[in-house]
Amino acid sequence: MSSAALRGDALIHRMNELIRDVPDFPSPGIGFKDITPLLADAEAFAGMVAEIAGRVDGPVDLVAGTEARGFILAAPVAMALGAGFVPVRKHGKLPGPTAAEEYSLEYGTATVEVHPFTVPRGARVLIVDDVLATGGTAGATIRLFERCGAEVVGLSFLVELAFLPGREVLAGHRVDSLIAVA
Amino acid sequence: MSSAALRGDALIHRMNELIRDVPDFPSPGIGFKDITPLLADAEAFAGMVAEIAGRVDGPVDLVAGTEARGFILAAPVAMALGAGFVPVRKHGKLPGPTAAEEYSLEYGTATVEVHPFTVPRGARVLIVDDVLATGGTAGATIRLFERCGAEVVGLSFLVELAFLPGREVLAGHRVDSLIAVA
Repeated sequence: MSSAALRGDALIHRMNELIRDVPDFPSPGIGFKDITPLLADAEAFAGMVAEIAGRVDGPVDLVAGTEARGFILAAPVAMALGAGFVPVRKHGKLPGPTAAEEYSLEYGTATVEVHPFTVPRGARVLIVDDVLATGGTAGATIRLFERCGAEVVGLSFLVELAFLPGREVLAGHRVDSLIAVA
Repeated sequence: MSSAALRGDALIHRMNELIRDVPDFPSPGIGFKDITPLLADAEAFAGMVAEIAGRVDGPVDLVAGTEARGFILAAPVAMALGAGFVPVRKHGKLPGPTAAEEYSLEYGTATVEVHPFTVPRGARVLIVDDVLATGGTAGATIRLFERCGAEVVGLSFLVELAFLPGREVLAGHRVDSLIAVA
């Protein structure tokens, strides 16, 4: 990692500049936060990972990343924390046996899955994803790990859409985001 | 990263033990290499990333990871090398504009896409993925970056299925794999 890594307010300002707002993606009326310019900027990318990892309280055994963009943040955060990594995948991507949790979408349902044999009972798990929106995926991921006997010690996001009820949905858990969008 | 990180032969041996062979996944006759136990082992995970990064010759500007498992290896390798990260995605996942490259599968075709505005002309790109099989995806990814005006300086894989012609398909490029399966 660069010794001249961006930190603090300068990092947050730079990250904000590098996130591209895309209207009507993936569907009309939805505003998409495109983080690919941020990821491609070596200094901002390293700063983001260090900032997420640096804000975590207490020991973490496993960092969980949500398919697919969550993998990009969670895997280097796991490395920075000296933790293992657990991919949280959509239905059908992991060969069995899996633990699964279904949750509601606006239209229909979705399922998140993990390999339970990679999650020891009592493991302290940090969940990392790029965007906190309605909290549906994150809430299901918490229930999934709790069903495996693990303890979810926190959830870290790059961007929080603060006009949506994600934080309320996750009440009772430590939620951190680097950038809040009002 | 742990100061007692696994290295060399001990690392390769440990990684081999942690990769789970799953027959007939995702379809009959296909043997799947499940790397989730390796990823969840903090020491083996950190060792794998350090080993991939340590074998790279010369400077790298961008590390490209292939959706979705490639993200898990490529993002921490990017951080270890002080490089930016570029996600190589399936069709329809990236909001436009995109650069795209189609390639043939046994039945039908697939497409890989990147955001060309994240790939400066002349950028030195390392492609990282979990498994080298037929080389179809990796070959298309090389063409995709070359079309963006970037230079592909190498391809790094965790596992190489040496009974398939992937390495021949990628001839002319530096290909490295930590584990070769005969």
